[in-house]
Amino acid sequence: MTQPSRQAFVPFVSVDNMMRLVLHIGIEQMMVDLAAEIEADFRRWPLFDKTPRVASHSDVGVIELMPTSDGQTYGFKYVNGHPSNMKKGLQTVTAFGLLADVATGYPLMLSEMTLLTALRTAATSALAAKWLAPQGATTMAMIGNGAQSEFQALAFKAICGISEVRLFDIDPAATRKCAANLAGLGLRVVPCATAQEAILGAQILTTCTADKQNATILTDNMVGSGVHINAVGGDCPGKTELHRDILLRAGIFVEYPPQTRIEGEIQQLAPDHPVTELWQVIAGQAEGRHDPRQITLFDSVGFAIEDFSALRYVHSRLRGTGFYQDLDMIADPDDPRDLFGMLLRAQAA
Amino acid sequence: MTQPSRQAFVPFVSVDNMMRLVLHIGIEQMMVDLAAEIEADFRRWPLFDKTPRVASHSDVGVIELMPTSDGQTYGFKYVNGHPSNMKKGLQTVTAFGLLADVATGYPLMLSEMTLLTALRTAATSALAAKWLAPQGATTMAMIGNGAQSEFQALAFKAICGISEVRLFDIDPAATRKCAANLAGLGLRVVPCATAQEAILGAQILTTCTADKQNATILTDNMVGSGVHINAVGGDCPGKTELHRDILLRAGIFVEYPPQTRIEGEIQQLAPDHPVTELWQVIAGQAEGRHDPRQITLFDSVGFAIEDFSALRYVHSRLRGTGFYQDLDMIADPDDPRDLFGMLLRAQAA
Repeated sequence: MTQPSRQAFVPFVSVDNMMRLVLHIGIEQMMVDLAAEIEADFRRWPLFDKTPRVASHSDVGVIELMPTSDGQTYGFKYVNGHPSNMKKGLQTVTAFGLLADVATGYPLMLSEMTLLTALRTAATSALAAKWLAPQGATTMAMIGNGAQSEFQALAFKAICGISEVRLFDIDPAATRKCAANLAGLGLRVVPCATAQEAILGAQILTTCTADKQNATILTDNMVGSGVHINAVGGDCPGKTELHRDILLRAGIFVEYPPQTRIEGEIQQLAPDHPVTELWQVIAGQAEGRHDPRQITLFDSVGFAIEDFSALRYVHSRLRGTGFYQDLDMIADPDDPRDLFGMLLRAQAA
Repeated sequence: MTQPSRQAFVPFVSVDNMMRLVLHIGIEQMMVDLAAEIEADFRRWPLFDKTPRVASHSDVGVIELMPTSDGQTYGFKYVNGHPSNMKKGLQTVTAFGLLADVATGYPLMLSEMTLLTALRTAATSALAAKWLAPQGATTMAMIGNGAQSEFQALAFKAICGISEVRLFDIDPAATRKCAANLAGLGLRVVPCATAQEAILGAQILTTCTADKQNATILTDNMVGSGVHINAVGGDCPGKTELHRDILLRAGIFVEYPPQTRIEGEIQQLAPDHPVTELWQVIAGQAEGRHDPRQITLFDSVGFAIEDFSALRYVHSRLRGTGFYQDLDMIADPDDPRDLFGMLLRAQAA
């Protein structure tokens, strides 16, 4: 066979190489960096090409494509959400993504994004809390101790200065796993037997559970004035975590309203219920928390721009690391009109 | 680093391996097989999850995602269209695609699709002509002799029994390239100096040009009664090939109306202009050609189900061939909730 040209190759970051890159940079440092990238992209939010993600639902889960572009670079993520996977020994969420050059349409990088999504989700949560949580917050309740929980805890430590996390999960084994993983990483970790115990003294309440159903992880009486709620797990139609009454008392901040109204906690509210876009707070165009006693809620569902920021960051850090391999992914004959001739020459060779 | 589990690997078909597979099967045989797969999937059209492709447009081109699902298997294609690429020595269209298991969301196969798109586009064109072209057609005019032209010519030979192709391109070098590539492959090849010369005696007129503009490759007076027009090149907003008057005289057949009305030749017509869906003709639910003197037009833009059929075909033919490599693309810790622990263990190793 003839050798493909340089243009034919796309750098690919495998799971193994992503782990090497994350450990090379440091887990907390990488989430600090990702939060900075996401913050910078949220400041230029209006120039992005935005669309609600394109979801294909089935009885057991969802497969989604999340594209966006800043006019120079295009990115998209493939991500699934299958709560029932866990029982089969599979990940609930797996993902990969791609960056491409808008000028030519040629891919720039293909990357695993299961790990990267965990990192960017936690970085985004902590970024939102940096803008919305009460001043001097030190304690976070972490309800749901699955695959995302340690990343959330460390991001809130690194970005918001949280020093104590209080863990609860309906499965004690998940709490034990989370506590063991966080041991020695600089946080005071308090495993709790109930959600009520977990929220004691917490200024930040993070919910990150995975059931595809309308659940009530937090009831109204559990939420005192002045707290910040970081609701991560409610992220598709029919999947919510908070009692509706909490939403009615809270200042609600979202990523991209057309997507969040379909997928977030606010699917429980009227379609015109007022919400504030997080990017507007960051860009100084809208007010964040207006009162120490206000309940603020970041109704997180995950938006394509966060993945774009994360992919661009990884791409910028790849050079010189060797943490990628080249994939022969793009047919690139010498004469671009001679795709067929490339086949003929391969046959002759 | 710890070894990834079997679930972590996704078979990847590189450009080189796709060429090996195509040559192993045979170019014409593969297009015959692809047409049969597409025909079978068109017969079960209503059960597919369908959406117009998600396009990100820029001044110089477009990047699109084309997802679909039959409820068991999910597929999507990434494809760009950049007419200006040719001057830079790059492909106008490059593509790759993925199949995934709906039950788990886990990818089943990643594949190059630049070559596969060329093959499936030609197979779809010939499939449409098999149902719509006049009986006993032997001669096709091929206007536009770029990267798609040889595939079209061979698909119409293999699937419709065409024995003569008459070539025209505004660039004589493209016609020379096409004629040279087709030499010895069993077709009578007639290079022509004008489009008018190319259509002489042709029962099938194929237009496949790449300019992103409203062009008039065929004017009304060039189209006699009874011909079948296979319009391939008009496939995005502002990009058409046929004079509007031709459309008003023709029976128009399309893939998926919500997409074709945006992207196809019929973007020149009123949004309620009657069209027939090709799958309905194949499934016996609508009439195809109703008269030997009727002008039939297949207003081809390419639809996600065709890519799905092509990816499933490649996947079914991979086993035992060795024409793929395994990519470590999915993070798959032993305990699915222990993604963070996978990082910690990698650090320890």
